[in-house]
Amino acid sequence: MTAPLHQARPAGPGRALPDNTQQGMRRRNLARVMHTVSAEGPLSRAAIASRIGLTRAAVSTLVDELIRTGLLQELGPERPGRVGRPGSALAVSGHGPAGVGAEIGVDHLAVCVVDLRGRVRARAVRHGTNRNRAPEPVLKDLTALIRQVVAEAERQDLWAAGLSVAVPGLVSWDGRTVVRAPNLGWHDTDLGALLPDGLPLTVDNEANFGGLAELWLGEDTPRDFLHVSAEIGIGAAVVVDGCLLRGTRGFAGELGHVPVAPEGPACPCGGRGCLEQYAGEEAVLRAAGLEPGEDRIGLLAARAAAGDERVRRALRDAGTALGVALTGAVHLLDPGRVVLGGALAGLAPWLLPSLEAELASRSAGRACPVSVSRLGPEGPLLGAAHAVVRGVLDDPATVAELA
Amino acid sequence: MTAPLHQARPAGPGRALPDNTQQGMRRRNLARVMHTVSAEGPLSRAAIASRIGLTRAAVSTLVDELIRTGLLQELGPERPGRVGRPGSALAVSGHGPAGVGAEIGVDHLAVCVVDLRGRVRARAVRHGTNRNRAPEPVLKDLTALIRQVVAEAERQDLWAAGLSVAVPGLVSWDGRTVVRAPNLGWHDTDLGALLPDGLPLTVDNEANFGGLAELWLGEDTPRDFLHVSAEIGIGAAVVVDGCLLRGTRGFAGELGHVPVAPEGPACPCGGRGCLEQYAGEEAVLRAAGLEPGEDRIGLLAARAAAGDERVRRALRDAGTALGVALTGAVHLLDPGRVVLGGALAGLAPWLLPSLEAELASRSAGRACPVSVSRLGPEGPLLGAAHAVVRGVLDDPATVAELA
Repeated sequence: MTAPLHQARPAGPGRALPDNTQQGMRRRNLARVMHTVSAEGPLSRAAIASRIGLTRAAVSTLVDELIRTGLLQELGPERPGRVGRPGSALAVSGHGPAGVGAEIGVDHLAVCVVDLRGRVRARAVRHGTNRNRAPEPVLKDLTALIRQVVAEAERQDLWAAGLSVAVPGLVSWDGRTVVRAPNLGWHDTDLGALLPDGLPLTVDNEANFGGLAELWLGEDTPRDFLHVSAEIGIGAAVVVDGCLLRGTRGFAGELGHVPVAPEGPACPCGGRGCLEQYAGEEAVLRAAGLEPGEDRIGLLAARAAAGDERVRRALRDAGTALGVALTGAVHLLDPGRVVLGGALAGLAPWLLPSLEAELASRSAGRACPVSVSRLGPEGPLLGAAHAVVRGVLDDPATVAELA
Repeated sequence: MTAPLHQARPAGPGRALPDNTQQGMRRRNLARVMHTVSAEGPLSRAAIASRIGLTRAAVSTLVDELIRTGLLQELGPERPGRVGRPGSALAVSGHGPAGVGAEIGVDHLAVCVVDLRGRVRARAVRHGTNRNRAPEPVLKDLTALIRQVVAEAERQDLWAAGLSVAVPGLVSWDGRTVVRAPNLGWHDTDLGALLPDGLPLTVDNEANFGGLAELWLGEDTPRDFLHVSAEIGIGAAVVVDGCLLRGTRGFAGELGHVPVAPEGPACPCGGRGCLEQYAGEEAVLRAAGLEPGEDRIGLLAARAAAGDERVRRALRDAGTALGVALTGAVHLLDPGRVVLGGALAGLAPWLLPSLEAELASRSAGRACPVSVSRLGPEGPLLGAAHAVVRGVLDDPATVAELA
């Protein structure tokens, strides 16, 4: 499990051929049983067999293996009182393997455990800045937090099937090295060497995990959408046909560096007039007359709610700049929806009117709908934990080997 | 065959389930045989069987069907003089079904026939403006051209398996209705009603067919790239993992309406400062001091080649504007390459330096490579014809039914 499980495509130029050995087909059939029960359960063996088009005997063998490894559980007889011998209803296990998600934020660390049914079973947060702290002490703190949360999960008969870590930066194709996280001051940092051994690890950008959380947990989320989030920088997750678009080098979704005014202020990226120079946290704080510091998003929201006109204007202008950048993105991608997530969700009441007005005025009557994520700042953490859970459903055999 | 054959995904929200009936598997196996022979042929039956993992007997049945319907042909014994009974080598047929591609340009009509081996076997062009001509006379002219070219192909033992038409405008999901083609003055025009009966029809945007031609016929084209073309408007084909991104409503790739200066000149789309206001044909002609008219691209290229400084400056500025718009696209999509195609290919010597400089200065040392299509203005026409050929390789059974 060295590459992200939810990767849209293999890193190489071609697609992998399906593994048509008996072993490969068994793996795929285990996954089909898990996905069917996860989406429609509880179900009897006979109901599973009819849904996936295998014989009852074949399904029984697969189900027995999934029960043995703790991925499915029997709930007892189904359909009591009806005609025919009752089948035993099967459900995805609320014990056994679970996903551990972690988030390294600029102002906090967070960890949670999600079971195979998608419920959060344990969580912990540690507040305090990580800006320009070296990776070692940050990951030592994170490891302590992971141990604490995993211990709490183990008391509930769960065990950690994998760990996914959301970071505010670019991550290499290996799924464990942070190439560049400017707000942490990290570059080329191999998190694998600094995190608990023995737990299959995936590291990814927080904007990507936020977008995946929206895809998996959002309300009626279409299969093509753009999820925009911000923690200092502004990132987007581009989701195409239910898959995250990563780009050739894994750098897709850098909405913050889309030019909104070609001769605008210089950006550390080397460009001029990038969106971040108008709608990034620093730019908005400056326009609002506030100093940088902890929980500035909360402060901006509080001041705007209290009617502070300078803060409101700063957010209105940021919304306009977001509208210009998103106009370009919408013309290129024609997504079914733009979702404001992460920190932007909390500021939506003041960003959204100018953002939508700008988008509409530039879209000739076919503006893309914009909505606000219900997940808000929880998105990246939940997306990370659910990525592990999805990995288990997609390949239960791997977990059986770990167990 | 009412929807484009090369569509990245079904129009609905979910993916279609694979057809696992015996009939469905036979169709897929026929396609696997065709693609294998097309990519690696000539091959013996035994070689095909070993490549696709079916028995020699199963492959023989499939091959016999493909020979009967004229899709494969036997070349005679393979490996003469070697040990063992020689197999008969099979190749994709140079006769039989072929793809008809057509292009409705603002200044011309063009039709060509491409055989299953990918060779152009017949073609014809009719020059003359179509600007603001009604659809009926244009399609009457096009029908005459199609009949002429198809007759020429029939003299070479080919028959038309389908017709794809490239148009300078937006096309609806039905693959036959032009929603809007501003430079022709057409809207909601059902081409199906006005073109020869009996030929399966697909209509698509010329930028899409240009991008597909680059994917299928370009030199070492990566599976993720952005193909930029222009005939009056500026369009892009966004190719992700070898599939054309169409967007939720089929409107993806509208690079011409990406804002490059938010307060720039008004655009007919309702926006301001769209790329087309700086790099569209009209804007460039105005900046170059030339009047609109036929073959203005050729005139621009000739003047620039002759050293006309005003024309060169107009093209340089257009390149800069393209660079700004493409910076946004590259940050969002991280493509493996940007390809300048269509009319832009002929102007590349004067556009490219400023375009590349702008892109590099805004990309922090990781600029996306830009190349010029070898296909140039031929792209959309070839893409259209090859789309039909791809459709035959992807589902040979359909052709067998037509034959």
